[in-house]
Amino acid sequence: MQRTQIIENVCATLARIRENPPLVLSMTNTVVQPLTANLLLALGAIPAMLCDGEEAAEMLRAGANGLLINTGTLSRDQAVAMRTAIRTAFDSKVPWVLDPVAAGLLSFRTQFIREILSAGTPPAIIRGNASEILAVAGYAAKTRGPESTSKSDEACEAAKELARKNTCAVIVTGAVDYVTDGNALFAFGNGNAAMTRVTGVGCAMGALCAACAAASANALDGAIAATVLMGIAGELAAERSVAPGSFAVALPDAFDALKPETVRERIKIESEIL
Amino acid sequence: MQRTQIIENVCATLARIRENPPLVLSMTNTVVQPLTANLLLALGAIPAMLCDGEEAAEMLRAGANGLLINTGTLSRDQAVAMRTAIRTAFDSKVPWVLDPVAAGLLSFRTQFIREILSAGTPPAIIRGNASEILAVAGYAAKTRGPESTSKSDEACEAAKELARKNTCAVIVTGAVDYVTDGNALFAFGNGNAAMTRVTGVGCAMGALCAACAAASANALDGAIAATVLMGIAGELAAERSVAPGSFAVALPDAFDALKPETVRERIKIESEIL
Amino acid sequence: MQRTQIIENVCATLARIRENPPLVLSMTNTVVQPLTANLLLALGAIPAMLCDGEEAAEMLRAGANGLLINTGTLSRDQAVAMRTAIRTAFDSKVPWVLDPVAAGLLSFRTQFIREILSAGTPPAIIRGNASEILAVAGYAAKTRGPESTSKSDEACEAAKELARKNTCAVIVTGAVDYVTDGNALFAFGNGNAAMTRVTGVGCAMGALCAACAAASANALDGAIAATVLMGIAGELAAERSVAPGSFAVALPDAFDALKPETVRERIKIESEIL
Repeated sequence: MQRTQIIENVCATLARIRENPPLVLSMTNTVVQPLTANLLLALGAIPAMLCDGEEAAEMLRAGANGLLINTGTLSRDQAVAMRTAIRTAFDSKVPWVLDPVAAGLLSFRTQFIREILSAGTPPAIIRGNASEILAVAGYAAKTRGPESTSKSDEACEAAKELARKNTCAVIVTGAVDYVTDGNALFAFGNGNAAMTRVTGVGCAMGALCAACAAASANALDGAIAATVLMGIAGELAAERSVAPGSFAVALPDAFDALKPETVRERIKIESEIL
Repeated sequence: MQRTQIIENVCATLARIRENPPLVLSMTNTVVQPLTANLLLALGAIPAMLCDGEEAAEMLRAGANGLLINTGTLSRDQAVAMRTAIRTAFDSKVPWVLDPVAAGLLSFRTQFIREILSAGTPPAIIRGNASEILAVAGYAAKTRGPESTSKSDEACEAAKELARKNTCAVIVTGAVDYVTDGNALFAFGNGNAAMTRVTGVGCAMGALCAACAAASANALDGAIAATVLMGIAGELAAERSVAPGSFAVALPDAFDALKPETVRERIKIESEIL
Repeated sequence: MQRTQIIENVCATLARIRENPPLVLSMTNTVVQPLTANLLLALGAIPAMLCDGEEAAEMLRAGANGLLINTGTLSRDQAVAMRTAIRTAFDSKVPWVLDPVAAGLLSFRTQFIREILSAGTPPAIIRGNASEILAVAGYAAKTRGPESTSKSDEACEAAKELARKNTCAVIVTGAVDYVTDGNALFAFGNGNAAMTRVTGVGCAMGALCAACAAASANALDGAIAATVLMGIAGELAAERSVAPGSFAVALPDAFDALKPETVRERIKIESEIL
């Protein structure tokens, strides 16, 4: 995929979200729910959140366009509801995104993640930091908590394997963000360290992945669009703020103001590695 | 009710909240809890939130002044706790407010809402968008997600029926907000589209309804006060912000600064329709 | 402890948090989770939150440095998970902090709090307002909701008793904050009334206590550091904001900017009462 093609795909996804707002059902951890909903709204999408598995299935059948599964505060009850939601999304051809928070560190969720990835209902996109992607791909990752202790480039091969195995796109976020469909591997340099100083920016990106997947031709385009849009919005917000509190305010404002021109000016496609 | 009377009622409710802060117990969805608590605090009320039904009953008997029931992230456990809370509030003469989020779209909550409205313990106020009010009144509403796909004026008749059936006040929020007690119908034009770009503004309004009901002579006065105060605060916040992130900061600041003079200057009573 | 010694301990704790960020697992109420995580991040610590008791135990054994137990939205399931977490933290020598929200007002949590305090696994720090500390110490407290109706100095004796009984530090927050290890009693005058107008500031302080306990020589030093740092950050944020919405933005910014010099200039050690 050429540089020009990538840029036009990102801009087209952004335009489609604004023209025909996708409804994204996020089954995500309680810590990040407000920011997740607000970034979806600021981007132009429609957020929905709920607990019950049957209600999730109904909403997915009634016209939700994307589903996020984030394991940040996974409970036994939520695991049951998520299984129902994933199955329904897959059957209804609604793209679902997996954000395997703290995979590899905690047994219950690691086992749950393995189970849902071997159920024959693969996600469109898996998004994680290097530790999480390494763990989900079956490698022993160094991790102590929700933050990654591996660098994003250490997880590139694991990401490609994971993408091939699940026929999905995989995003490894970090100082450089990598996106792969198992064949091509793209590296993007947008973003700012301030994004790691506000809780939930990474988790909210999982929901943006679902919005972008719903508005893109395929999962890879959706994953690239979410990565680039989040990175650029993060840069813009960092330029308009001085510390984490003001950054958290500037971030939805930046998503609200995102324009195709800004994408064209700002995008940093570091390289395409085959 | 005359225009002058309406204005004085709203101002009196605001003054009473500041003089004698009502304690509002909100059993609401996890997405909007921080904003709900913060808007209650900014208005001058005292927020309380908890999960357990027995604890809810104790708090209602111990001196809570209002109760919000919001079905946004309803679970089987929460339904049980809410039933206990509603029964206790009714028996303790604490006004309770129903915010039937996504009623009509999802079976479990739609059935729960019908059940609690037929238990002989009617709410003081029901607040919803047009789709939700239509659904709760028994009409087939067009809805795809948490946002309304009907305009607020399409739900006026349903609101009046619902108010008569439950001997309560009903608010239909939208570009124009309607308030009815089943007989009179009032239309208010305050507010700003920015209020729909931040998650939880509508849900927080349910909690403000409970605060205002606790501080008003009757449910209709409380419903009108909450509608007008929210609309005016939303306008003020929109004037002091440029995008959703800064609007969310300006909104509690606007509630904190609300004064009777501002209500008198700003209130837009569109009409009284009989 | 001399004034100079106190100041140097607070500054040393702050420096240690920045050099070697403690991972704090917060099992806290859903209302305050975003603010809690964001203040931990802004101070320099690493937040983690989760639901499941087994996962909590794994994280505590895998290297978490502090644990917060906050009873704000206690459920039967959460109580089970918290018991497991407390036992594991104690066995792993991870300091845990108890924030007994609404103790004395509600039976279920009051009984739970008594139970966990008599399990032979005492906390490093208990932090509450006067009503809560009185209730936990076994006195009849006046309370109607989550806010205290007693003044902080009314709970000093109860705090000392509680500290002696549990061999821990106790903080009573209020217009003046008191900290005791059961022998010495210190009074600090930092802070601003704006801190009571934003939901979760007190609850977030419980998490900061866990971070400070992890980075201090002992629980008393940790309790004093958290009290002073929170008070000073609150003052700085109040000076840079006009109302609750902007205060909530300025607060993480103030934590981010906290420096030893600021602590030295600002600290208000009101008195040491023996």
